[in-house]
Amino acid sequence: MNYVKPLPSFLAQRYHGWKATTFAENHAWYKRLAEEGQRPRAMVISCCDSRVHVTSIFGAEQGEFFIHRNIANLVPPYEPDGNQHGTSAAVEYAVTALKVTHLIVLGHSNCGGVAGCYAMCSGQAPELDEKTSFVGRWMDILRPGFERLPEGEADTARRQALEHEAVKVSLENLMTFPFVRSAVEAGDLSLHGLWTDIADGDLHALDPISDRFRPV
Amino acid sequence: MNYVKPLPSFLAQRYHGWKATTFAENHAWYKRLAEEGQRPRAMVISCCDSRVHVTSIFGAEQGEFFIHRNIANLVPPYEPDGNQHGTSAAVEYAVTALKVTHLIVLGHSNCGGVAGCYAMCSGQAPELDEKTSFVGRWMDILRPGFERLPEGEADTARRQALEHEAVKVSLENLMTFPFVRSAVEAGDLSLHGLWTDIADGDLHALDPISDRFRPV
Amino acid sequence: MNYVKPLPSFLAQRYHGWKATTFAENHAWYKRLAEEGQRPRAMVISCCDSRVHVTSIFGAEQGEFFIHRNIANLVPPYEPDGNQHGTSAAVEYAVTALKVTHLIVLGHSNCGGVAGCYAMCSGQAPELDEKTSFVGRWMDILRPGFERLPEGEADTARRQALEHEAVKVSLENLMTFPFVRSAVEAGDLSLHGLWTDIADGDLHALDPISDRFRPV
Amino acid sequence: MNYVKPLPSFLAQRYHGWKATTFAENHAWYKRLAEEGQRPRAMVISCCDSRVHVTSIFGAEQGEFFIHRNIANLVPPYEPDGNQHGTSAAVEYAVTALKVTHLIVLGHSNCGGVAGCYAMCSGQAPELDEKTSFVGRWMDILRPGFERLPEGEADTARRQALEHEAVKVSLENLMTFPFVRSAVEAGDLSLHGLWTDIADGDLHALDPISDRFRPV
Repeated sequence: MNYVKPLPSFLAQRYHGWKATTFAENHAWYKRLAEEGQRPRAMVISCCDSRVHVTSIFGAEQGEFFIHRNIANLVPPYEPDGNQHGTSAAVEYAVTALKVTHLIVLGHSNCGGVAGCYAMCSGQAPELDEKTSFVGRWMDILRPGFERLPEGEADTARRQALEHEAVKVSLENLMTFPFVRSAVEAGDLSLHGLWTDIADGDLHALDPISDRFRPV
Repeated sequence: MNYVKPLPSFLAQRYHGWKATTFAENHAWYKRLAEEGQRPRAMVISCCDSRVHVTSIFGAEQGEFFIHRNIANLVPPYEPDGNQHGTSAAVEYAVTALKVTHLIVLGHSNCGGVAGCYAMCSGQAPELDEKTSFVGRWMDILRPGFERLPEGEADTARRQALEHEAVKVSLENLMTFPFVRSAVEAGDLSLHGLWTDIADGDLHALDPISDRFRPV
Repeated sequence: MNYVKPLPSFLAQRYHGWKATTFAENHAWYKRLAEEGQRPRAMVISCCDSRVHVTSIFGAEQGEFFIHRNIANLVPPYEPDGNQHGTSAAVEYAVTALKVTHLIVLGHSNCGGVAGCYAMCSGQAPELDEKTSFVGRWMDILRPGFERLPEGEADTARRQALEHEAVKVSLENLMTFPFVRSAVEAGDLSLHGLWTDIADGDLHALDPISDRFRPV
Repeated sequence: MNYVKPLPSFLAQRYHGWKATTFAENHAWYKRLAEEGQRPRAMVISCCDSRVHVTSIFGAEQGEFFIHRNIANLVPPYEPDGNQHGTSAAVEYAVTALKVTHLIVLGHSNCGGVAGCYAMCSGQAPELDEKTSFVGRWMDILRPGFERLPEGEADTARRQALEHEAVKVSLENLMTFPFVRSAVEAGDLSLHGLWTDIADGDLHALDPISDRFRPV
């Protein structure tokens, strides 16, 4: 594997700093977590975007949150066809094996994946329509969200509305998984939709009554 | 969407704490990141496991790291079949759109996904063999790693060896993506393999010469 | 230019070591930084002193910090008189062109420049009072800090207090620059005062409430 | 000083990491440096640019290098007019008080300050011509270098030639300081000119015979 390189020293330096401080402060807890296994309280599905603050917002990395991150925080519909579905596997593991009690989908502003989907669905990104585009095929999950966007608004507003749709479509798709639906109906699991604004740090939650996002 | 619930107050409280402290300290920077876009230096592929410290180890969440997290930090082989491949989409976006210069696969000890794969491949978890098991089908990616495990060691050692294989198989599969291979060959991207021990916080890096993991 | 000499070999040797290691690990990132330009998050104003650890403390030299170093980390008041003001030029470039979001003044213990200022203001260094003394004229910037030192303490304590004043005077002078003040007032820039102890490595931050330096 | 803010936590975290590792490894040496004073072997004058690797290239921050950083690594001519000259003060302190034995001017590629000077001298940046432009007035130091650029080359080549001139002009100006000239003539101080390419990490040294920069 001669294409593999050693860890860059600036990262090694940060690791050693973490080891000597944050880890040292918590090592007994981490040791227990290793021995007894994780027991996360919630699963969070968020975007890979480097500006999304999921860990710091919730003070994660202490064994509480099972975190799946993919492009545009999407969940595909239930499709047990024997193919590889990484997101569905993560949901299945969290709900059936770890029995998390909260499942949170966290969207965000300025999402490049959602912007790509918007361009693709508007006919402005033919390269994303190609069969070989992994990003394009992945963003197909969000097409139903694009189709129900209200007409007559500016592109900026519609793109942000599509970011909200990415959360809603994922929540809807989650309910197509039998093990999610039954856990929700049994009161063992609750679903939550969030959207965070990168620029001003605001967090908005999907209000189930009005079906709109409101500041937390 | 009456199955959606409001954000639990313990999370709202943490969010407000973050907003008043970490966010407040950095808001001008986040505003610029929102306006000018992200320019992450590295992509990290790690496990969803709630005990994995990827963000704090490297001081992430400041725009530097594009993070994909799935079960057992796996990358499937290149398969442009028009289906939904969330991991492949994330890799494609990071390498071709964001042009990250480092791609790091981070495995970890006590990995439940890898343990499941080990049980499945050893014939001890027939439920994971079923077509409808998302976790089982996802862990199929790691079967080639199981098959080359050395014989004659204890289960504990073999399971840890399989965690190392999860990193190696992913790195091998990454090289089957034409855009990854060409970026690596052009010197624009370097691949790295890491494995972290949850209990003692140690970080091990895959040494390309010996093909073994060694402490950083 | 026969007064110019070739690079001493001990430095050439270190350069080759850096090139083969740190640079090699990060070359793709440096290439991008060269092509796309720097986007530093912070400006640091520190002393030229060979014992000041600004780069390693913060893991700098990766494109994140715009660093100006002068004698005693001083910033003169705003004086747009058409003369050459190297420090003011650096501040202007960082704030108006690079739009850094943090501006940090970093003082330190055992500062020779501050000790010289203390001696000069106490009448014990007449050579620094001469018009032709560049160091003396430069340290004039710190005279207002000397004048407000509390009486009745030992010289050692007063010299350290003057090191703290060097940070405070610089912060006060920074606010006399219209472009600094307006960026601060708009919330796009925050100012920070630090002082580091060379002997024990401690870092102290200026607490805006108490107006005193406290350990980080 | 209510405009001063506490240190952002991401920097506090990096500091604590450094303190627990790099500092801990070297604390006895730093303690001696604090007690006995610095005794740097060389002064380096380099640019503030966040991509310039002066500390890591030479393994600095251990008491060996007295480092002055300003826009475009410029030294003005000797002008003992009683005004504040930060760069001249740094040179005076290094040569007369610290008695460094090497004085290195380090230029670099992709220099924003030099590009601004080039635009200004070409009549393409009238805002830099204004009396109130600190950057413009500072870059006036480099005007003699612009005026002797060879004609008939492309802008890119001429801008890089001007980066080389920034080093040469500074070396020439250094020789106008009586204490520099006499130390050079006595053989107690040697001057060196360097230029580093950010993209490929190469270091070029000014060859006194050919008057050209050549790879180290």
